Amino acid sequence: MRRVDLSGAECPIARGADELGDWWNLLILRNALDGMRRFDDFAEDLPISPAVLTSRLRLLVERGLMERRRYRERPERYEYVLTPRGRDAQGVVLSLLAWGNRGLAPDERAVVLTDRDTGREVEPVLVDAATGTPLSQMRLAAAPGPAASATMRGRFATLDERRVRRRRTEGASS
Amino acid sequence: MRRVDLSGAECPIARGADELGDWWNLLILRNALDGMRRFDDFAEDLPISPAVLTSRLRLLVERGLMERRRYRERPERYEYVLTPRGRDAQGVVLSLLAWGNRGLAPDERAVVLTDRDTGREVEPVLVDAATGTPLSQMRLAAAPGPAASATMRGRFATLDERRVRRRRTEGASS
Repeated sequence: MRRVDLSGAECPIARGADELGDWWNLLILRNALDGMRRFDDFAEDLPISPAVLTSRLRLLVERGLMERRRYRERPERYEYVLTPRGRDAQGVVLSLLAWGNRGLAPDERAVVLTDRDTGREVEPVLVDAATGTPLSQMRLAAAPGPAASATMRGRFATLDERRVRRRRTEGASS
Repeated sequence: MRRVDLSGAECPIARGADELGDWWNLLILRNALDGMRRFDDFAEDLPISPAVLTSRLRLLVERGLMERRRYRERPERYEYVLTPRGRDAQGVVLSLLAWGNRGLAPDERAVVLTDRDTGREVEPVLVDAATGTPLSQMRLAAAPGPAASATMRGRFATLDERRVRRRRTEGASS
């Protein structure tokens, strides 16, 4: 597939996707969130070659999602620890976990999320921070933010127009 | 990059990632969640060729995330509409949007999420459905579910052991 650079994209979804890189990085972050730190442990768990793993970890460090930290002097040994920005990607990882599991019957699930203190199963839901309303129950719209370019504002205006036009058409035909 | 088939993976994060496909699919879902339905509109908005877009839409239909629906008889015209499973991926898309934006200063953001009815900005937060506690404030653990294989149970046991060992080592050195 053609690789398009989205790092300068205005859309935060495109930029976020670009920052995370491909899905392997998400699986590395998953393991790191599970408490994994050492190269050999990542290598054992993921079906990728050591060379690929090395390049992925380097990328995650370059992008500020992980930090390479020496944990032994002789012989020199390093481990990979999440930065606050990397830890903050937990929401993306857990949303994917929740969505993956919602596609299965309860007894088909091989992995569930639990509260480590009580062992109780946890079901992640995305809500509006201000009101606690689940986002799936709200009518949401992406809108231009303070840094939106004229192009981006135009894109949203077009989307709005289409929505209004469709509502009219659907209203007229029903 | 080597393409590894994760569709049969036990980990719901890996399976979810495989089901979604690459990031382009997520951008197509983003547009569909914004109300977009027609091929030409997707083609205009995304920097991918019509051929690539066609194959992506076909994949999303095959996987049950979108439905191809005829909206005109003469000439025959089709549109692409989210299925309930596709609509349910909203959480993944919005988590990525929120994470992308959290990497920016407020006035650097080009796109924000709003409540369509009030225009108020919405900040998505992932919480425990049972208690409303933000997941970032909880101690979480992935755990084997009902369908976990012996291998998967072994993986979790290893992770737990490592965690305990590390806690001991860190406790001893401080």
